[in-house]
Amino acid sequence: MAKEIYLDYSATTPIDKKVLDKMLPYLQENYGNPSSIYALGQRSLFGIDNSRKIISEFLGAKADEVLFVGSATEANNMAILGLIKKLAKKDLHVITSKIEHPSVLETCRALEKEGASVTYLPVGKNGIVQVSDVEKSIQANTVLVSVMYANNEIGTIQPIKEIGVLIKRINEKRETKNKIFFHTDAVQGSNYLNCDVNDLGVDMLSFSGHKIYGPKGIGVLYVQRGTPIKPIIYGGGQEQGLRPGTENVASIVGMGEAIRLVSDNKEEQKSIKKLRDKLIKEVLKIPRARLNGSETDRLINNANFSFKGAEGESIVMALDQKGIFASTGSACSSNSLEPSHVLMGIGLSQEEAHCSLRVTLGRKTKEKEVDELIKVLPGIIERLREISGR
Amino acid sequence: MAKEIYLDYSATTPIDKKVLDKMLPYLQENYGNPSSIYALGQRSLFGIDNSRKIISEFLGAKADEVLFVGSATEANNMAILGLIKKLAKKDLHVITSKIEHPSVLETCRALEKEGASVTYLPVGKNGIVQVSDVEKSIQANTVLVSVMYANNEIGTIQPIKEIGVLIKRINEKRETKNKIFFHTDAVQGSNYLNCDVNDLGVDMLSFSGHKIYGPKGIGVLYVQRGTPIKPIIYGGGQEQGLRPGTENVASIVGMGEAIRLVSDNKEEQKSIKKLRDKLIKEVLKIPRARLNGSETDRLINNANFSFKGAEGESIVMALDQKGIFASTGSACSSNSLEPSHVLMGIGLSQEEAHCSLRVTLGRKTKEKEVDELIKVLPGIIERLREISGR
Repeated sequence: MAKEIYLDYSATTPIDKKVLDKMLPYLQENYGNPSSIYALGQRSLFGIDNSRKIISEFLGAKADEVLFVGSATEANNMAILGLIKKLAKKDLHVITSKIEHPSVLETCRALEKEGASVTYLPVGKNGIVQVSDVEKSIQANTVLVSVMYANNEIGTIQPIKEIGVLIKRINEKRETKNKIFFHTDAVQGSNYLNCDVNDLGVDMLSFSGHKIYGPKGIGVLYVQRGTPIKPIIYGGGQEQGLRPGTENVASIVGMGEAIRLVSDNKEEQKSIKKLRDKLIKEVLKIPRARLNGSETDRLINNANFSFKGAEGESIVMALDQKGIFASTGSACSSNSLEPSHVLMGIGLSQEEAHCSLRVTLGRKTKEKEVDELIKVLPGIIERLREISGR
Repeated sequence: MAKEIYLDYSATTPIDKKVLDKMLPYLQENYGNPSSIYALGQRSLFGIDNSRKIISEFLGAKADEVLFVGSATEANNMAILGLIKKLAKKDLHVITSKIEHPSVLETCRALEKEGASVTYLPVGKNGIVQVSDVEKSIQANTVLVSVMYANNEIGTIQPIKEIGVLIKRINEKRETKNKIFFHTDAVQGSNYLNCDVNDLGVDMLSFSGHKIYGPKGIGVLYVQRGTPIKPIIYGGGQEQGLRPGTENVASIVGMGEAIRLVSDNKEEQKSIKKLRDKLIKEVLKIPRARLNGSETDRLINNANFSFKGAEGESIVMALDQKGIFASTGSACSSNSLEPSHVLMGIGLSQEEAHCSLRVTLGRKTKEKEVDELIKVLPGIIERLREISGR
């Protein structure tokens, strides 16, 4: 196999070897069902408890506030649907943003069909929600604000802490009995941003294993004690009855180790940022190249460009031919012909939105890999523009 | 570590080495997101497609009728809630049995709260649903029958094929436009029973990875083409939009290999049955021991006893001390003090239901392990009866 260069870390990450090493005993000899009372079962339970402890410390939370679920998609669904179900009232109001992940947007659309109303906040050209827009949107029946921590396409970081302060202030002086709960989808943020739930002022926070060098098929939902929530799946008593089904022990253990490694990635972050800054600087030398999203308030591993006249999917395929893996936007919508709702949300035209390239760096990215992209990209863009005649 | 004897295969199974070997490349180098269009992503997609093909052949189904979900609990929820949501009518009627797994029973109870009506069919002393009871329960607004293939506690096999024939007959002559759909929870049956969906006449069928020597955290829902179903989780377009969230590629691949091994386990079944028969014969020599459930229509690996005067949990703990792992009933309710709804369902008294021991054999069970249990169990029962004075 020819050398491959992976530059799509926001789509998914390889499992870190240290994570897999922690998982393997639970894929082999420690196979007991954690609900079983004998020694083999209790070993599995110990693995889960230990992971829950690591994650709760990372979040500044209590262990029983950490729930393991099957994916961040499920975590986002549970945060939104679970709260609304528990509140069990019609005519509730939810605030979110236009650039959320589909697992939030589609869940909100489902709520609307069941009678809730939803405000989808706009974002400016920089891809950032205005705290003042959140404030203006709050109604007497608002019960939930769900804003992502960092965007999966353009990497822009939302002012979660500031929104948290706002919501706290409003809750304190509110005359209605409805508290406003605050959820953030931290899938993209959890690698690089402060996830202390007290600092952020969130009641619920979601993240995923496979975006942080852990396995696919595992997610976490932090739920602050006292937050009203119902399960969205029914069955046994696992996860305090909130997420029934035999626990995915190996992946839960892997998630714990992945978070332990994230807690210790300061040096890694510096090196990724340096490479990403070099990448942006060099790629913007391509004529008519533009950087989508904020220059400053963005994840240190994210670059998202548009190249007028060069179709994004064609760029991705041309890079693939050279063994370089990048994407037009989120992997979740790779099979979609619709232009990105995120790029449209920051004001790009349909054509511009179709000309995007997302490059996301990670733990194993080497300078020579970034250099290789910098070397081949201008030729690809030029050729595609020749073909399109634009 | 002292030698351990695992006799709780219905709670969970160890991952077969062949399964883990197939999974490992997808936990390592083949880490791409299957939605990504470049080579690394397509390799993951190929792994999923291949697994889907193996499983669809096992079921006698089409590939697009096989959906991967996070657990059998989720599969059961999706079958029941997804159908009812799609039909989108009030006053629908569902038929199930009293001895289903909590992931079916609790889902049905949730339906009742939302306005559906549910008939919970009784089972006789032998733990088997009567086809005539199903027929008598059908109403004009009945849209779903969900009956498990084999029970997780007492291993009794339900007449799924006969119920399938009944439902087909009723659907053909029915005046109302409502078709009755038929779902079976085949979690316990999938190791040992014919799962050809055409033979069974089912529209939906669920099973789990970790009960068939595959990983935890993966389930399958078979949904026949044309069956109305909605997702219960919202998000991206994965699994035909019916089960969004990045696919758990490694576990999906493992599930395929696990099913391939099940297709080829005829010899294994003979040997397990022989050991199980010996176990039952010898254990029933203990005074006042009884076998719960049918003597004949039960899974070949299952034995479930009651020993009056000896509390089940105490038996399990005494066995644990000797390195033998068995259970009182399902692992899902190990932490519950409630008597088993299954044992109560077959007419045991509360006291008898508390005196149960489930022993389930599997792929790695050796004769000397069964002999060891046969050797130590009488003493344990005797001692516990002395303590209880009964």
